[in-house]
Amino acid sequence: MTACLLACGINPDRSCIFQQSQVAEHAELGWILNCLTSMPRLMHLPQWKIKSQKNEGSVGLFTYPVLQAADILLYKSTHVPVGDDQVQHLELTQDTARKFNNTYGDFFPIPVALMGTSKKIRSLRDPSVKMSKSDPQKLATVHLTDTPEDIVLKFRKAVTDFTSEVTYDPVLRPGVSNLVSIHSAMTGLGTEDIVRQSRGIETAQYKLLVAEMVVEKLTPIREEFQRLQGDVGYLKNVLNSGAQQARELASSVYDDVCKMVGFR
Amino acid sequence: MTACLLACGINPDRSCIFQQSQVAEHAELGWILNCLTSMPRLMHLPQWKIKSQKNEGSVGLFTYPVLQAADILLYKSTHVPVGDDQVQHLELTQDTARKFNNTYGDFFPIPVALMGTSKKIRSLRDPSVKMSKSDPQKLATVHLTDTPEDIVLKFRKAVTDFTSEVTYDPVLRPGVSNLVSIHSAMTGLGTEDIVRQSRGIETAQYKLLVAEMVVEKLTPIREEFQRLQGDVGYLKNVLNSGAQQARELASSVYDDVCKMVGFR
Repeated sequence: MTACLLACGINPDRSCIFQQSQVAEHAELGWILNCLTSMPRLMHLPQWKIKSQKNEGSVGLFTYPVLQAADILLYKSTHVPVGDDQVQHLELTQDTARKFNNTYGDFFPIPVALMGTSKKIRSLRDPSVKMSKSDPQKLATVHLTDTPEDIVLKFRKAVTDFTSEVTYDPVLRPGVSNLVSIHSAMTGLGTEDIVRQSRGIETAQYKLLVAEMVVEKLTPIREEFQRLQGDVGYLKNVLNSGAQQARELASSVYDDVCKMVGFR
Repeated sequence: MTACLLACGINPDRSCIFQQSQVAEHAELGWILNCLTSMPRLMHLPQWKIKSQKNEGSVGLFTYPVLQAADILLYKSTHVPVGDDQVQHLELTQDTARKFNNTYGDFFPIPVALMGTSKKIRSLRDPSVKMSKSDPQKLATVHLTDTPEDIVLKFRKAVTDFTSEVTYDPVLRPGVSNLVSIHSAMTGLGTEDIVRQSRGIETAQYKLLVAEMVVEKLTPIREEFQRLQGDVGYLKNVLNSGAQQARELASSVYDDVCKMVGFR
């Protein structure tokens, strides 16, 4: 199954997990929003600029931010958890919601960004770029399902610099600062506390320390992941009932949209 | 109802008429085909170039040829009636079908263009552009529902030139040649025969002659149109049963597509 997974909060206690491709209204609302979006608005999104420079851009990739807007608005979402790199895509969603409301009448809430407090985690091979699951360099990215041996190897090979001291200076020492950020995300400690605690530790040794924290944090996740992968019946059931629940919510909103734009 | 109408031949005797927006699979397949289409391929389509120069281009308009490809491929169409101005859009459909077949396995037939034999009809106000129902100049376009008085007025005001003779020379005399083309389309006569028959007739008089032929051809169409407009129940029934029939065909093809691309 290569389709993407989305989660939408139905009530505060539970999330609804489903395959986007199982709910036709995502593509249908996406089409309507395409018609409300100007070309320059999409052309100027920074992620598109980067991809298109590398000549990697399909029409699907180009219009993907509009589909994201549909993913959000289809459930009349009010709050959306986003990372730094998605802020401008959420702004597009907000603009699109306003454009729809101005054209057809007040309907969509303008969704608000919920920014996480964690620092951005960077590639272990090139701290100038963010860590990404699509990075072709195998040692750049830690996956939730990596074995402890993989994790230790990746941190051992992490790019730092020629200074053998642990400090936090993302501009001048991006590599070791990335390790401190990961350390912070694993423990909840602030970067200053971490640097103070790590006085006298060499970076080679520090890498292994951080690797151990990551192993400890990810081991229960990996184990649960493997357990669930063995229970295909349960997973299918989660997706099917999620899709059903999502379809009910989506079809009611999309029905109203159709009436407003004149499709019904 | 502003949604567009499509016809697809189900069997040689009957067509199926339905609203595209009632069949979700059009937008869904459109999205998949977006991901198979490169940006330069769309950017270079001549209709987009014209529209984007006028700054009229939304993302919906830009990606519209891909939706057209979905409209065609969703029914595994083998033959598509097109005008000159749609040949390049059908070529996009053919390329997209090939791309899909090469990527996921042989599935879509490569649809063939059925070109009409009628000449392209040009604007009555500016014979350098084609007659178009979206032309803002009210006198430029004859609508199927125009009254005889409207039609006569539009032809009386049709732009020709200062030569008062009927000849067929689309390059040097586009205005009067457009009238000859319309005459030809109304009667089935060749342009040479028409020019021979019209010897001695002045263009002012010729305009009224052509207008009369158009009135005669369109009157039964207009009357039937008005009769049907009064029978809303019948029209709704045609659309509803058309949509049902289209949905059955579309969902079976789209189901196969989903399996091939890995959505199911």
